[in-house]
Amino acid sequence: MRSFNRGALDMRPVTLTPAITRHAEGSTQVEFGDTRVLVTCSVEERVPPHLMGKGSGWVTAEYGMLPRSTHTRTQREAAKGKQTGRTLEIQRLIGRSMRAAVDLPGLGVRTFTLDCDVLQADGGTRTASITGAYVALVLAMRKLHKAGVMPRMPKLTPIAAVSVGVVKGEVRVDLDYDEDSTADVDLNLVATGDGRIVEVQGTAEHQLFDRKTMDAMLDAGLAAIRQLTEAQQKVLGA
Amino acid sequence: MRSFNRGALDMRPVTLTPAITRHAEGSTQVEFGDTRVLVTCSVEERVPPHLMGKGSGWVTAEYGMLPRSTHTRTQREAAKGKQTGRTLEIQRLIGRSMRAAVDLPGLGVRTFTLDCDVLQADGGTRTASITGAYVALVLAMRKLHKAGVMPRMPKLTPIAAVSVGVVKGEVRVDLDYDEDSTADVDLNLVATGDGRIVEVQGTAEHQLFDRKTMDAMLDAGLAAIRQLTEAQQKVLGA
Amino acid sequence: MRSFNRGALDMRPVTLTPAITRHAEGSTQVEFGDTRVLVTCSVEERVPPHLMGKGSGWVTAEYGMLPRSTHTRTQREAAKGKQTGRTLEIQRLIGRSMRAAVDLPGLGVRTFTLDCDVLQADGGTRTASITGAYVALVLAMRKLHKAGVMPRMPKLTPIAAVSVGVVKGEVRVDLDYDEDSTADVDLNLVATGDGRIVEVQGTAEHQLFDRKTMDAMLDAGLAAIRQLTEAQQKVLGA
Amino acid sequence: MRSFNRGALDMRPVTLTPAITRHAEGSTQVEFGDTRVLVTCSVEERVPPHLMGKGSGWVTAEYGMLPRSTHTRTQREAAKGKQTGRTLEIQRLIGRSMRAAVDLPGLGVRTFTLDCDVLQADGGTRTASITGAYVALVLAMRKLHKAGVMPRMPKLTPIAAVSVGVVKGEVRVDLDYDEDSTADVDLNLVATGDGRIVEVQGTAEHQLFDRKTMDAMLDAGLAAIRQLTEAQQKVLGA
Amino acid sequence: MRSFNRGALDMRPVTLTPAITRHAEGSTQVEFGDTRVLVTCSVEERVPPHLMGKGSGWVTAEYGMLPRSTHTRTQREAAKGKQTGRTLEIQRLIGRSMRAAVDLPGLGVRTFTLDCDVLQADGGTRTASITGAYVALVLAMRKLHKAGVMPRMPKLTPIAAVSVGVVKGEVRVDLDYDEDSTADVDLNLVATGDGRIVEVQGTAEHQLFDRKTMDAMLDAGLAAIRQLTEAQQKVLGA
Amino acid sequence: MRSFNRGALDMRPVTLTPAITRHAEGSTQVEFGDTRVLVTCSVEERVPPHLMGKGSGWVTAEYGMLPRSTHTRTQREAAKGKQTGRTLEIQRLIGRSMRAAVDLPGLGVRTFTLDCDVLQADGGTRTASITGAYVALVLAMRKLHKAGVMPRMPKLTPIAAVSVGVVKGEVRVDLDYDEDSTADVDLNLVATGDGRIVEVQGTAEHQLFDRKTMDAMLDAGLAAIRQLTEAQQKVLGA
Repeated sequence: MRSFNRGALDMRPVTLTPAITRHAEGSTQVEFGDTRVLVTCSVEERVPPHLMGKGSGWVTAEYGMLPRSTHTRTQREAAKGKQTGRTLEIQRLIGRSMRAAVDLPGLGVRTFTLDCDVLQADGGTRTASITGAYVALVLAMRKLHKAGVMPRMPKLTPIAAVSVGVVKGEVRVDLDYDEDSTADVDLNLVATGDGRIVEVQGTAEHQLFDRKTMDAMLDAGLAAIRQLTEAQQKVLGA
Repeated sequence: MRSFNRGALDMRPVTLTPAITRHAEGSTQVEFGDTRVLVTCSVEERVPPHLMGKGSGWVTAEYGMLPRSTHTRTQREAAKGKQTGRTLEIQRLIGRSMRAAVDLPGLGVRTFTLDCDVLQADGGTRTASITGAYVALVLAMRKLHKAGVMPRMPKLTPIAAVSVGVVKGEVRVDLDYDEDSTADVDLNLVATGDGRIVEVQGTAEHQLFDRKTMDAMLDAGLAAIRQLTEAQQKVLGA
Repeated sequence: MRSFNRGALDMRPVTLTPAITRHAEGSTQVEFGDTRVLVTCSVEERVPPHLMGKGSGWVTAEYGMLPRSTHTRTQREAAKGKQTGRTLEIQRLIGRSMRAAVDLPGLGVRTFTLDCDVLQADGGTRTASITGAYVALVLAMRKLHKAGVMPRMPKLTPIAAVSVGVVKGEVRVDLDYDEDSTADVDLNLVATGDGRIVEVQGTAEHQLFDRKTMDAMLDAGLAAIRQLTEAQQKVLGA
Repeated sequence: MRSFNRGALDMRPVTLTPAITRHAEGSTQVEFGDTRVLVTCSVEERVPPHLMGKGSGWVTAEYGMLPRSTHTRTQREAAKGKQTGRTLEIQRLIGRSMRAAVDLPGLGVRTFTLDCDVLQADGGTRTASITGAYVALVLAMRKLHKAGVMPRMPKLTPIAAVSVGVVKGEVRVDLDYDEDSTADVDLNLVATGDGRIVEVQGTAEHQLFDRKTMDAMLDAGLAAIRQLTEAQQKVLGA
Repeated sequence: MRSFNRGALDMRPVTLTPAITRHAEGSTQVEFGDTRVLVTCSVEERVPPHLMGKGSGWVTAEYGMLPRSTHTRTQREAAKGKQTGRTLEIQRLIGRSMRAAVDLPGLGVRTFTLDCDVLQADGGTRTASITGAYVALVLAMRKLHKAGVMPRMPKLTPIAAVSVGVVKGEVRVDLDYDEDSTADVDLNLVATGDGRIVEVQGTAEHQLFDRKTMDAMLDAGLAAIRQLTEAQQKVLGA
Repeated sequence: MRSFNRGALDMRPVTLTPAITRHAEGSTQVEFGDTRVLVTCSVEERVPPHLMGKGSGWVTAEYGMLPRSTHTRTQREAAKGKQTGRTLEIQRLIGRSMRAAVDLPGLGVRTFTLDCDVLQADGGTRTASITGAYVALVLAMRKLHKAGVMPRMPKLTPIAAVSVGVVKGEVRVDLDYDEDSTADVDLNLVATGDGRIVEVQGTAEHQLFDRKTMDAMLDAGLAAIRQLTEAQQKVLGA
């Protein structure tokens, strides 16, 4: 039996709590079951060097886990003096995904930074982060738009993300930590609600996989993402 | 008029939410008004080198701020590759305070690590951290005691912390960010409910202060701490 | 017209030069057109901490680019004091892929480290690295086997890797730098010659992609990988 | 019996040797008994970013211990690649104290950096540093004033610092290393000769302390500081 | 018998392969027997801060060893996060030598960076690097000159480098790794073909040496360097 | 006219003050004119990994400059987070020189660390450091010998060091900062009093140099070193 008593293709309960912090231009707390991530979107009126003088904006992301968001305590990256390869890989994925969701030239000369900090981890922290980051990003844009700082809302492509895996020979979506640790195949998918793909990263953990399994995982993932984008729209009231 | 419509010697509303996370042996979310800190207590069955073979336990602390817990975004320390002097100073203060609150030999050969992560900052993050850390530490001990891992609860000295300042010529307790930025004197006090002092750190920010002011600040701080230790006891049900 | 006058589904000329260096247990220089990577395999009689006492071996990888392997000079990572996120991501990918290619318990208590250093870059450095690393790994194992150090050759699953992209609306394999810079979609595929997948990482660079494109890219990639594993076997004389 | 055959409220012999080095704008060697600190004051015609365009000057400090200034050799911070929390905490304290001693706008657009390097440590290195730093700072200002670079001497508030502790139940000032290691309470005080406080940092090392002890420590500390500011004035010939 | 069947004052076979990489303005692969170094020369249209506004150019160098260029694998400096003292010392030596070989003002406002990466090490990597770097530097200058970017070729002083040592009581040039490990004295010499010295660095490894030995080593080294500069001129076709 | 009114081949006034600090096993303050270095020798009862189980001892060195030992303030290496190439090069030179001065197996299983900290710099800091380090090392050995910890004094080879240069066409020894900045050739020599060479490092700063100049520099340097070893023996009372 899976956690939360759900079927192989069901998400864990998903909660998106908007405007969870006071200072950030946009924020949300996203929960996929027991995985809980605080996402803030900060806006700064400058762009990275490679965009200077081009009139375009930028979206970037940073990711971190609180030391005891995990089952046993993980060393604090700030104390260790560097971010792990896993952290860098995840924040690069979140950043690329968010840039695919917006029209950068429409942002004006400003940078939107999405900070995804995992308060509690139970599998799927990167997919929850992406799903929540889209909400925080839109909220920040709306705030700037309302304040007259950004005359027009940029063109948006709603995206969300989910993990898919093969566990005990079965394709399942939204793996929790226990499933993730024993999965034979692990795939993270970022896509739109109507099935266009932003990122796909699949890894054979204990067993190589064939095209048929790949297809089944993509089908399952895209279906779950459709539900997630609906949940986002409900919160955003669009 | 002060925030939350309070008098010079009043605390902001204080909330202590115990057991806020799933994995940590002890945890609490502490709020002093809009300041919000997530504190976890992790237990590991080992001690630092200087205690090896001595039969005593250890308590230590780490402190961090989420990048957008602040009014404008602060650079992530993990990305920068080092912790600031302010961070190190605060976590040393929290660690010393917690060690003063327990009988280290009574802990057995184990280390209790208090992670204080600021989710939202509005002044007083170090004093809120200490006040919350005491609760998380006791919860972790009780868990180990209940599980039979720690046969006896160690001797405890309940402590809490508050900031005191001189703002516009007036002694005030529990400064929020706006008051803190303009205070002439800033003092952080860690003490027991019955007025015994653990730490006192006072700084003349814009104006030197005399003994009379020092005395008034200590009086105000110790009174506030009495209330805070009562709030802790209420949560801990002792 | 593509570089080397080739069709959309053709590889650039592939060269695998075995035993290119003198000290390493195994080595190869791999070229995909103008991309040139020196791969060495070093063997050490120890395993990382998480494998101690388990009787299993380990395979890991490191990746680097010479500063002027690129069109304009890139800062030396050793001088900068840290590896970029891109570097860490690539070396994690190579390491996972190589571990999927061998039976770790069969290695004995030893670590095989694959160093992939890019001498000249023209797109596809990570896929060339993986394709060459498999050869260097096998050569190192054979050397140990011949020397009687490793009584039995471990079970092997030949793997190779190729990049696939959508350029000007066309699915193409083995992109060179110019194509890579302008591709709408970029996918790296690691697989066996008979079509079982080890890793798939696809990214929408300038345009989201649908399932049909995904399918076409996987088909093209798996076909190219079949050729690459044949080239590997020719060099390995198996 | 205390070192140097002194009473509980007596300082160790204090020596302030001005102009001890050749290159610095101001310098002094300060000795509190066997504690010996070389302080230099360097002047640069620029200010940190947060003061640019404001017409004000800045005073900052750095602190270090020579590796064998201590009883057993301490690892060189430059070799270790980072400064300890203790070092950062002390240099922040010295910097704040010095800024309280001068009128920053009167400095002109320049930065005074006080380097406090401990040649020999026997307790009280931070208080000796502050006491010496005031002398070096004034000497540097006078040099600039004489040279016509700084038309008017800035307004100065003479300050000094001393440690106070409770050792064997007795309040004592200016603890040496042996006393410091066994003190129940440890307090560092920075103040003016006429009893106005700049900084107070008190810590319960092995025993909490009450208001009465706090008062006694402040009385003892302020009395000692009065003597120290007199010693400073004697050297400065004011 | 020495490696390559040579006499005490003979070089190992020397190979200089020009234009070995595609992107660099100049490049060469230099081999002294089994020592193999890839040298590239990169040109950037900027100078370091201390030369800004002076109209002069700059030449600098960086040095690295591939992890398995050595007999047993050496840790990657990029992974370790810092360059060793040996690496820094060698790249400072190469840089100084190259600056002695050209007229800096004649370079125009640009920086030539020589990257010397050791692909295979068997003693003499720093002397091979310098000998090859001179070739790569000249090739880069010629390229800029031909392209009309640098109107006149700068004045050049051809230089090369060799190691000399005392092994088993005998003065020998161009030591390989085995000889280097057991040499009593080790001297590196950088000079012109006509015997003018650029750098000399001699070290008593296991035995102090007298003036007579010093003289014999200088004689032997200068003779070898004459041959090396001839080999350079042959490749450069000057 | 040279500083201190001296001839081309004269040293500046040399002072060696033994036992200058209280905690170190051996120490000396060495002055070459206005260059002033504090050298301590610390003994630890352990050896580096490569000597474990071999019964031999070790001698090593570290070097640092106080930030304002120089004409203008130099950034503190501890604050910058790394030691410069110059620092590492100098401390490697000092360490090698000291190891040439003693019989390592005679030291027992212990490490002697020489910390050379420059209090005031005016040229020749590395040669002053070596000259002083020999004294501090001998003093530390004698202390251990007297205390019965080291039953026999190890065999010693007295060494010292001096800089030699070509300034305005003239060979001069012991250059001060002004001479050093304008010298055409700069050579550092470490040797015994009777003319056996430990290290020689010569650099053409602005002009290549021939064999005749090299010979003149060696003659001048060795003569000066004879005087320095006599000064050492006088202080050591041997």
